[in-house]
Amino acid sequence: MNINNSNILIVGLGLIGGSIAKCLRKNDIKVYGLDINKDSIEYAKANNIICNKNESNKELISKANIIIVCLYPSQVCDWIKNNQKYFLDDVLVTDVTGIKGAIVDKIQDTLTKGEFLAMHPMAGKEVSGVINASSTLFKGANLIIVPTIKNNPKSIDTLKEIGDMLEFKRIELLSVEEHDKMISFLSQLPHVLAVGLMNNRNNDHLIRYTGDSFRDLTRIAKINASLWYELFIANKDNLIYDIDSFIETLVEIKTCIQNEDEEKLKEMFEISKVRRTNFDK
Amino acid sequence: MNINNSNILIVGLGLIGGSIAKCLRKNDIKVYGLDINKDSIEYAKANNIICNKNESNKELISKANIIIVCLYPSQVCDWIKNNQKYFLDDVLVTDVTGIKGAIVDKIQDTLTKGEFLAMHPMAGKEVSGVINASSTLFKGANLIIVPTIKNNPKSIDTLKEIGDMLEFKRIELLSVEEHDKMISFLSQLPHVLAVGLMNNRNNDHLIRYTGDSFRDLTRIAKINASLWYELFIANKDNLIYDIDSFIETLVEIKTCIQNEDEEKLKEMFEISKVRRTNFDK
Repeated sequence: MNINNSNILIVGLGLIGGSIAKCLRKNDIKVYGLDINKDSIEYAKANNIICNKNESNKELISKANIIIVCLYPSQVCDWIKNNQKYFLDDVLVTDVTGIKGAIVDKIQDTLTKGEFLAMHPMAGKEVSGVINASSTLFKGANLIIVPTIKNNPKSIDTLKEIGDMLEFKRIELLSVEEHDKMISFLSQLPHVLAVGLMNNRNNDHLIRYTGDSFRDLTRIAKINASLWYELFIANKDNLIYDIDSFIETLVEIKTCIQNEDEEKLKEMFEISKVRRTNFDK
Repeated sequence: MNINNSNILIVGLGLIGGSIAKCLRKNDIKVYGLDINKDSIEYAKANNIICNKNESNKELISKANIIIVCLYPSQVCDWIKNNQKYFLDDVLVTDVTGIKGAIVDKIQDTLTKGEFLAMHPMAGKEVSGVINASSTLFKGANLIIVPTIKNNPKSIDTLKEIGDMLEFKRIELLSVEEHDKMISFLSQLPHVLAVGLMNNRNNDHLIRYTGDSFRDLTRIAKINASLWYELFIANKDNLIYDIDSFIETLVEIKTCIQNEDEEKLKEMFEISKVRRTNFDK
């Protein structure tokens, strides 16, 4: 499918949906939007983020060649189930949610038209809504495409084409299981640590003394409660495993400090430095 | 003491010492430097970071009204002990180390001339050496002055004057005990978490998938092994207490996830968001 000749429908014009729309529009792609919030639609129309005229939702869905569902995990399945009666027969449907195990099989099993291929843009900001959308949100970030045996290689190419246009630095493929394990360690565990630091004690008075280390580690503590509750619960088993494993590492470090085990602790510091250097952008 | 009429001696021209020197020189203060590394001295002279001509160490120490010791914690006491025979009778000596309990009493008890008043600039970078020194390193950061009953209020004013010139946003006073408790939670525990994330598992392959959360939480994992070993051990009791306390918080979060305790978990997320917003610069 050539995205230049496609109608792309964004369902949910929040930060992610809005940013995808904005960047695709910058590339003159025909982008349309759906949102239960009329103000978001009006804002997006007024700012050339979507090409909507006055079509009904049914009309917009019926002409979409590609549908990018940018809703919360719990809403993705229901939206597709309730609206697939309007889908084109060869529509490509994708999503942007942060967990895949809880939704991919379910959607692929119930889809009556077209194809569902999941993706996860590894980018975000601590703000929300289409008014904060940015056409450069994905620049330099990683995009994960999560195919199953039910997916067509051509659909993977289509999502890669969209990913390139959104200026992702790397586009990688992972299975559903690999994706959810990866996301538990790289994203959910860090969020647990940030939330943990802010909840460990009342720290209001500490603002007067803090340096940037504490700020860096807790930037993501400004968490969207409803979204992250869903993400944590949907990936429960992986996340509990990672929290337990991390507690073991903390106990290991604590034991080194208790025993003043200089050799072991410095070895951990060196490993830390070398591995972290690899993560520099 | 008026710092404009003072000779200020920086002992140890690393990142912190070099940045202090650079900023004070920008304000036309008479700044001199000492370092065991001759290249650092030559670089600092060539770049107008210090005013050294060809004085001996003894001569530089003998004319210093203010001495800022920017060495590792383990070296501060010895340097002062070995060189105080050259001090002016009314010299004001300070340091920049990240722990105070292990050094302040010891220095104040053995000092035979002048006064020792500790301070801790809450700023840094993941690079070292005078070549990375920056006159704006402290801009917007917090400076903690750590007086004891042995200190003179006028000396506190002198350090505040220096702190203002270095463009610190806030200058606060803390007792030795309060400082070390604060630094354990705000700086050392975050470093333990960052080092823990990098040591928990081999994560080299994860670079292809990561988002910025993981990068933010591990920025400080590029740790200076010798320095941080000293800092952790010198503040051992506070840090072990904080690691244990943080493990309890992790277990609390894990239990919420296990029980799908939506109310409790969302309450923690909301606390996290509100408290973290207060920490924005």
